[in-house]
Amino acid sequence: MNKQQNVLIIGAGLCGSLLALRLGQRGYNVSVYEMRQDIRKVDISAGRSINLAFSNRGNKAIKLVGLEHKVKALCIPMYGRMIHDNHGNTFQSNYSGRDHEYINSISRGELNALLLDEAEKHKNVNIYFNKKCKSVDFEKTTARFIDFNTKDEFIEDADIIIATDGAGSALRKSYYLGKKFLFSFSQDYLTHGYKELSILPKENGDYKTYKNALHIWPRGDFMLIALPNLDGSFTVTLFLSYDEGPYNFNNLTTEKMVLEFFQKEFPDALALMPNLVNDFFENPTAPLGTVKCSPWHYKDNTLLMGDSAHAIVPFYGQGMNASFEDVVEFDAVLDTHEGHWDTVFSTYEKTRKKDTDAIADLAIDNFHEMKAHTANPIFQEKRKLEMALEKSFPDDYSSKYSLVTFNEHIGYREAMLKGRAQDKAILNMLADGELNANDDLATVLEKVKKETQNILEDDKIAGLK
Amino acid sequence: MNKQQNVLIIGAGLCGSLLALRLGQRGYNVSVYEMRQDIRKVDISAGRSINLAFSNRGNKAIKLVGLEHKVKALCIPMYGRMIHDNHGNTFQSNYSGRDHEYINSISRGELNALLLDEAEKHKNVNIYFNKKCKSVDFEKTTARFIDFNTKDEFIEDADIIIATDGAGSALRKSYYLGKKFLFSFSQDYLTHGYKELSILPKENGDYKTYKNALHIWPRGDFMLIALPNLDGSFTVTLFLSYDEGPYNFNNLTTEKMVLEFFQKEFPDALALMPNLVNDFFENPTAPLGTVKCSPWHYKDNTLLMGDSAHAIVPFYGQGMNASFEDVVEFDAVLDTHEGHWDTVFSTYEKTRKKDTDAIADLAIDNFHEMKAHTANPIFQEKRKLEMALEKSFPDDYSSKYSLVTFNEHIGYREAMLKGRAQDKAILNMLADGELNANDDLATVLEKVKKETQNILEDDKIAGLK
Repeated sequence: MNKQQNVLIIGAGLCGSLLALRLGQRGYNVSVYEMRQDIRKVDISAGRSINLAFSNRGNKAIKLVGLEHKVKALCIPMYGRMIHDNHGNTFQSNYSGRDHEYINSISRGELNALLLDEAEKHKNVNIYFNKKCKSVDFEKTTARFIDFNTKDEFIEDADIIIATDGAGSALRKSYYLGKKFLFSFSQDYLTHGYKELSILPKENGDYKTYKNALHIWPRGDFMLIALPNLDGSFTVTLFLSYDEGPYNFNNLTTEKMVLEFFQKEFPDALALMPNLVNDFFENPTAPLGTVKCSPWHYKDNTLLMGDSAHAIVPFYGQGMNASFEDVVEFDAVLDTHEGHWDTVFSTYEKTRKKDTDAIADLAIDNFHEMKAHTANPIFQEKRKLEMALEKSFPDDYSSKYSLVTFNEHIGYREAMLKGRAQDKAILNMLADGELNANDDLATVLEKVKKETQNILEDDKIAGLK
Repeated sequence: MNKQQNVLIIGAGLCGSLLALRLGQRGYNVSVYEMRQDIRKVDISAGRSINLAFSNRGNKAIKLVGLEHKVKALCIPMYGRMIHDNHGNTFQSNYSGRDHEYINSISRGELNALLLDEAEKHKNVNIYFNKKCKSVDFEKTTARFIDFNTKDEFIEDADIIIATDGAGSALRKSYYLGKKFLFSFSQDYLTHGYKELSILPKENGDYKTYKNALHIWPRGDFMLIALPNLDGSFTVTLFLSYDEGPYNFNNLTTEKMVLEFFQKEFPDALALMPNLVNDFFENPTAPLGTVKCSPWHYKDNTLLMGDSAHAIVPFYGQGMNASFEDVVEFDAVLDTHEGHWDTVFSTYEKTRKKDTDAIADLAIDNFHEMKAHTANPIFQEKRKLEMALEKSFPDDYSSKYSLVTFNEHIGYREAMLKGRAQDKAILNMLADGELNANDDLATVLEKVKKETQNILEDDKIAGLK
């Protein structure tokens, strides 16, 4: 097998730089072209470092490339959701009843920089910045770029091209516009957009609110969240409708209205954000979209991976984790079929797509769960019961959240089917009075398992998924 | 209110010509531009007249424009599915237990011609052919056309533009490429394509097989269907995977293979089709796709209607019916909000989109039902039970098929939710032995109603739709 094959990767974001590192480790000649400047040379000021939730599926990939300890040093554990009500009261809802299961806040920039550094340690990996891909000729396996410095356009040739260029992928656009094969494609926007804000550190560098949680201010139709950064700040994100409700992104146009909105809905957050108005009017409002498509590859020439194949909304904290898991799955397919790119690409899509479709749908579910259900009594009762089950029967029960986030040995689709059935079972048994808080937990576990199984079997007989 | 407003309609297919007629009746100045030549001047030879299933929802629109009797004369009633097995055995499965409920085979060309004739009877309606829309400037409310005869390009201005230009809509493409607003969009292709074939009339003009049914040869992974035409022929359609299975569109490349495939799978159909090989290699293979999008309109300037907003696969026989129902719904919104186009467009989308999304999903369901489930014993038992319920309790029970097809007073979404819950209830009760063929029908009805209600309530509590 010819390991001297030239692999061209479009995009040196999280997925692209991890893939470059892994393919570098495997011995391929890897060239990566990134449209942005080198993130390692950009000054990221306090409170503006966008952070992400890093968890088990992502860590599987980080272990694969041998960086577990280096990445751990960048992580801030978040053990649960810290829910803030309208009056500033808080309560914590853990992500799991098992103490060793938690998610982590991590800086996108620092993680990306680490991956770039590690990739470049391989002589057979070269990364070029400020070079934007304009289109891909997927029949000739060539990509056209423009150099942002020189404004020159140039064409690169490769044995295979993998696009990890995100939700606005140039390769995906070439598939769509090329009309050389039937290309299924969807882009779905939520009615809500988002805007990043910040809680800066205290003067002594301390955190202004509890560090080890994902803070949520759920308000039914909208919400605010905050994740900690290593420098003592929090990155805060407002999720709000563009045009519905008394306050929305289209009508929050004055300082007075923004302050009035936060005073009414998020008074405790406002108290920590003297910089609110400045952030609000300086930072852009961005849309929230889901992208799905198929096929992900063209013959043995080109492949979409990460967000370019399956961009999702951020509400399950799984965007990066899913893209990292792509690399693990791709690597496993390479172990079996290396040298036969057509088989590698088609096998990878066949095993992987059902799972990325599932996490896309789960992320939409969680949008509604976070902004509304977290404040709903029956939902809170379900969470309490599930925490108790996970604590008492750590080997026997996992909630939907745990299945998705901490059970990296099963796929997203299996986690979704089982998790949704469990949720349905518990919510209905609570509503019907068939379960209650004083029941013996072993009995509860038995009932939940039985009813979950019934639900899955009924769906199967009805031909539903 | 100024009724002298100029409405430009792009596309004079079934939806566009019906809309032109209705808006003409309402007094608008209507100009319709169609890319094809005038269908009334084209010779449609025997066996090539593509036919459609016309049913209650479509008839609602035909009644609205006063053409019920003229359309009835074009219809051939189909009372049920005539199922053909591999050995040429047949059995009929009716569409309803109520004798007055059936669907109709109708020629697309003849129905379209009638609507064009009727629209042109209005002095305020003008229809132009051979003029293809290239793009729409939805901010200026202008459309650019090319005249296929003169090759001239020209721009038309209007007060409002409504695009009824089908699955490949120019207006929808302008929305997508314009990037002036967040446009959610999906195109989803099935793995299967289709090819039209024909059963010609006997020499004396008689039908070669039973006239008043929709014939189906279900084979699990693929199927053949046939609908009657007024001239004694049947239009036959083969639905088959492009590349999966022992026989597929990609490998059926020789006369020998086509004959071998039909001899093995459809021997009784082959006996009626001496023209098979000729049809097979002369007629194109076409893809099957679903299109959804949102928003359907831009401010008070432009609107998508019919297939341009929601193209669906043909398996529920509802494509034309859904587009005709669009016109009924649009007309009802006009009754309330005429003169305020922005409100008309947004109200219309708000009330209508949930239903067209539902029929798109139902049509995919029916693809699987037709090619596979119709040959499945438990499914056949369900259908038998439902026919008995509809016959004995005509006012109290309607199957999913009846809810979708014959209950035009409820929307597709309501029909889908109730119909799917009923199917799930019956299939599970049959599988669990809770229902059986000897039960008293009144008891069966009670059980089915109760279990359907339970399923709907459980889904509601779990936050599912």
